[in-house]
Amino acid sequence: MILDGKKISEQIKTEITEEVKIFSAKNNFVPGLGCILVGSIPASEYYVKSKVKSCGEVGFYSKLNKFDSTISENDLLFEIEKFNNDAKIHGILIQLPLPNHINEEKILQSVIPEKDVDGFNPINVGKLVLGQKTFVPCTALGILEILKRYKIETMGKHVVVVGRSNIVGRPIANLLSQKEYGNAIVTIVHSASKDIASFTKQADILIVAIGKPKFITANMVKNGSVVIDVGINRIQKGNESILIGDVDFENVKNVASAITPVPGGVGPLTIAMLLQNTLLAAKLSVGGNY
Amino acid sequence: MILDGKKISEQIKTEITEEVKIFSAKNNFVPGLGCILVGSIPASEYYVKSKVKSCGEVGFYSKLNKFDSTISENDLLFEIEKFNNDAKIHGILIQLPLPNHINEEKILQSVIPEKDVDGFNPINVGKLVLGQKTFVPCTALGILEILKRYKIETMGKHVVVVGRSNIVGRPIANLLSQKEYGNAIVTIVHSASKDIASFTKQADILIVAIGKPKFITANMVKNGSVVIDVGINRIQKGNESILIGDVDFENVKNVASAITPVPGGVGPLTIAMLLQNTLLAAKLSVGGNY
Repeated sequence: MILDGKKISEQIKTEITEEVKIFSAKNNFVPGLGCILVGSIPASEYYVKSKVKSCGEVGFYSKLNKFDSTISENDLLFEIEKFNNDAKIHGILIQLPLPNHINEEKILQSVIPEKDVDGFNPINVGKLVLGQKTFVPCTALGILEILKRYKIETMGKHVVVVGRSNIVGRPIANLLSQKEYGNAIVTIVHSASKDIASFTKQADILIVAIGKPKFITANMVKNGSVVIDVGINRIQKGNESILIGDVDFENVKNVASAITPVPGGVGPLTIAMLLQNTLLAAKLSVGGNY
Repeated sequence: MILDGKKISEQIKTEITEEVKIFSAKNNFVPGLGCILVGSIPASEYYVKSKVKSCGEVGFYSKLNKFDSTISENDLLFEIEKFNNDAKIHGILIQLPLPNHINEEKILQSVIPEKDVDGFNPINVGKLVLGQKTFVPCTALGILEILKRYKIETMGKHVVVVGRSNIVGRPIANLLSQKEYGNAIVTIVHSASKDIASFTKQADILIVAIGKPKFITANMVKNGSVVIDVGINRIQKGNESILIGDVDFENVKNVASAITPVPGGVGPLTIAMLLQNTLLAAKLSVGGNY
């Protein structure tokens, strides 16, 4: 079975559009997302544009502030502070990566927790790990949504997460091992292992976020397992530039019982979850609950 | 080999005593620990007393404030605020558990991050998970110290953590999977697994913090593995009340290459690490680094 992230993300956007109508009728404002883009990395420009476009589709307000890659850290902090204080903005997105002269840690901490819809502020990371209500990072939330909407059982299952990034691997590993979210047995594997396959072959659910094209091959996957591919790698194929995942989709799909494609898997969900978190932030701003 | 936590903790206390002499000569004050004990649970009283006593041994200032179990949440918050503002106090310890009418989450968040020597404030938990410098929870830090002082290699090893508590299982799992701390492959197992033994048998290093006496038996342990027992269970044996761990020590010690006893293993380290974190807090208060 192909886990169709594009279809789910469209469903979610439709649901959000309906919710926004009700929300704005009641509160006389719409949820707003403030985006910050520094520099001109093509992939970053593409992602931010997609996010802004999606905001329009569901009826959100959005504002994109673009800055030259030479912007100083202090000036950038000042710009974030503007969004922190802007009543029309409920969620703030800082498109990563940032230029080397800017301290990413410091920038992500400067987004107030109430508008931290990416869930990257340490206080929100801490709450997530402690099992408290907070903004869940969008990609991790997207994975949970795929599992939920396709009714994939996680309780007591062995989930193997390949990759330990702060953006994907670590939050999804922490979430799925919690009673409330997944109640799964979770192994987090990474490059320090001499035999990654010995772990991936055990997975009932394999989540791959390592950023290496076709890293996971069919012989590394257990028969009948569920494979979630978070990788988005742009490679050159002849004259064409194409996107491929961290999983060798064509071969692994014959072994797995369910698999996400790239593109059209986790990617679209990530944007839908950003919208969902922004709606949540707007709700919380008028006294709503998680 | 028996991993002698008592001996290591004595070494560390000696080291801290020396450091305190140098520190106080330079800064004209000694590190101070503020302890809060609510109610009269015998184990809690015992632990807090041990902590206060250890402060004296290494030359720290300490203050123990005891409250009746009927104290209101607001009054307790007010008491913590006093320690937050007390220049003589560099670390604050809230002995857990708290009575049911008090929101533990709220209390732990009220300790300012700079004095959070238990590492339980969400912002410090988040920093730990993100790989930033912060106070590491004492028991997790004690486990790291045992591994370090006995030169037990963790890189690329398979660490299996049994138990997912916020106090032990989760922080040690997050730490050991980080490049900087352990660089290990980490599996976190818990009660939702139908076959815990299938995971524990794979462990090169097995860390058990599940709170069930003799839960880990010899047939659940791989030959030659390292076993760290975090459990402290008080049971009745005839007329005697004795402490035993989560591991069936007598039998597992014949299978493991190294093992911590209970008592005398991780327990004493936890107190030594509380002292170390308090010394660190005092150093940071005068502009020192992690």
